[in-house]
Amino acid sequence: MSLTVVGSVAFDGLETPFGKREKILGGAATHFSLSAGFYTDVNAVGIVGNDFGEGEWEVFKRHNINTDDIEIVGDGKTFFWKGKYEYDMNTAHTLDTQLNVFETFDPKLSENSKNARLLFLANIVPMIQKNVRGQSNAEFVAMDTMNFWIDSMKDAVIDTIKVVDCVIINDAEARQLADEPNVIRAARKILDLGPEAVVIKRGEYGAALFTNETYFAIPAYPLESVFDPTGAGDTFAGGFMGYLASQEKIDEDAMRRAMIFGSVMASFNVEKFGTERVDALSHAEINERFADFKRFTHFEEIPFERTQSV
Amino acid sequence: MSLTVVGSVAFDGLETPFGKREKILGGAATHFSLSAGFYTDVNAVGIVGNDFGEGEWEVFKRHNINTDDIEIVGDGKTFFWKGKYEYDMNTAHTLDTQLNVFETFDPKLSENSKNARLLFLANIVPMIQKNVRGQSNAEFVAMDTMNFWIDSMKDAVIDTIKVVDCVIINDAEARQLADEPNVIRAARKILDLGPEAVVIKRGEYGAALFTNETYFAIPAYPLESVFDPTGAGDTFAGGFMGYLASQEKIDEDAMRRAMIFGSVMASFNVEKFGTERVDALSHAEINERFADFKRFTHFEEIPFERTQSV
Repeated sequence: MSLTVVGSVAFDGLETPFGKREKILGGAATHFSLSAGFYTDVNAVGIVGNDFGEGEWEVFKRHNINTDDIEIVGDGKTFFWKGKYEYDMNTAHTLDTQLNVFETFDPKLSENSKNARLLFLANIVPMIQKNVRGQSNAEFVAMDTMNFWIDSMKDAVIDTIKVVDCVIINDAEARQLADEPNVIRAARKILDLGPEAVVIKRGEYGAALFTNETYFAIPAYPLESVFDPTGAGDTFAGGFMGYLASQEKIDEDAMRRAMIFGSVMASFNVEKFGTERVDALSHAEINERFADFKRFTHFEEIPFERTQSV
Repeated sequence: MSLTVVGSVAFDGLETPFGKREKILGGAATHFSLSAGFYTDVNAVGIVGNDFGEGEWEVFKRHNINTDDIEIVGDGKTFFWKGKYEYDMNTAHTLDTQLNVFETFDPKLSENSKNARLLFLANIVPMIQKNVRGQSNAEFVAMDTMNFWIDSMKDAVIDTIKVVDCVIINDAEARQLADEPNVIRAARKILDLGPEAVVIKRGEYGAALFTNETYFAIPAYPLESVFDPTGAGDTFAGGFMGYLASQEKIDEDAMRRAMIFGSVMASFNVEKFGTERVDALSHAEINERFADFKRFTHFEEIPFERTQSV
């Protein structure tokens, strides 16, 4: 098995200017798994309640996600999040959060999950992330986090960053974490904590990859309509980590292509509610958008010479 | 002569977290000219007062800018703008605006300025922009504008857009102009007004080029410190238009490289106060950052195949 993800499996209630869903499949580990499943074998580690039904399990099965490490609490309810997006679609306003069984989440990785080559620590309590990292034998570990943990327990977030290879966060979180308004300096400060790579997600502005020696940046896929941005960040991370898991060498070239595949996956994710679009995706569609990215970013390298002037 | 620019020539008072300048050379046409002058012959069209001194003229002379069409009002004072940037450097807060002689600006282009192959209408009253466009024989005309004109006379802005080939504006202005929060749709709506190209400047997030058939987007040059963003947009436009003026064919390939050269020029502009950095720039430095852009954005186009999985 190649890639293990630890994080939330949830139900989401969503309101966007384009529609509404009362209770659909969501959660960071869910979005991540479905996306990564296009590239590699995935183990999902999470916890759900007895309200998690056949329809939900079917989605995981359809994408060959190994759910052996998703614990089912017989007398509990699944994590529920309800959010609303305004017209500009940039910020989610939380309307309701019911942690339910997620409050007791204390992941114990099976041998199979421990031995995956890559591990992704989706956004959960930083101490749990660190604990999971300790259980794993993965050669490449990435993590996400969020403003809530940076606000309330920054030291614990930093402790976890010190034991991972890659941090994948959005730009506001990077600035907040590094206490630095310039995002380039913020990324450098995070690199100084130990990881070999930092990926900054910038939503509609694209994404950037930093290592100590290199910098790589890409625009977002140009979408005329964003239907539901929920899970876009985890879908990006799933494409990024899933693609890396498929590659023999996790080097700069592979990470650059992984950035593109991550962005491609995120661009599909936002086209419909929840997991709907990625659930129905094909490899041909993925490769088409990958090729689009090359077209959107390519230019000829011809230095300027004053004698060219006409 | 290849490129004419019409716009403000001014004195700026600047306050940033890194320092202060009481009264230095500024103005859209100034920043544009200095930047474009690295690529082509430039005619600047503007108006100044009797306080515009030898030191200011020297800057134009040093870069071979033709200033014959900069009118000098003997009993007037030069346009003065005073602004302040907060720690995040994203927004200029205007502290003082003295239009002075700029209030009577009624540009009459000399034959030389009329016959330039390219024309840039920097941010001024849209009716004046349209009038200047009518005087010119240029084959490729671009314009800028700002939120103030879009707020107070949107119809006049649109009238001017209808008679130019290219609109170069920032993303907030594009959204406002098109009354559309999605910037991709906003750009398409502006293209529908007639221009063949729309360039959206996104500050620290880079820039994007839209035509009816194509899309091209680049990140910004990764700067760890932004010293003074004043004039960055005009410096970008100067690099973009200046480079195009140096090229025999103004096609998609040339415009893509022009986007890079524009971004390179803007990246230098913000490193010191006002025109200081661009004034001291060399072609070698420019070509070095052009090559950096290729390194920062290049990736190998290898589609994903499931059998690659290791």
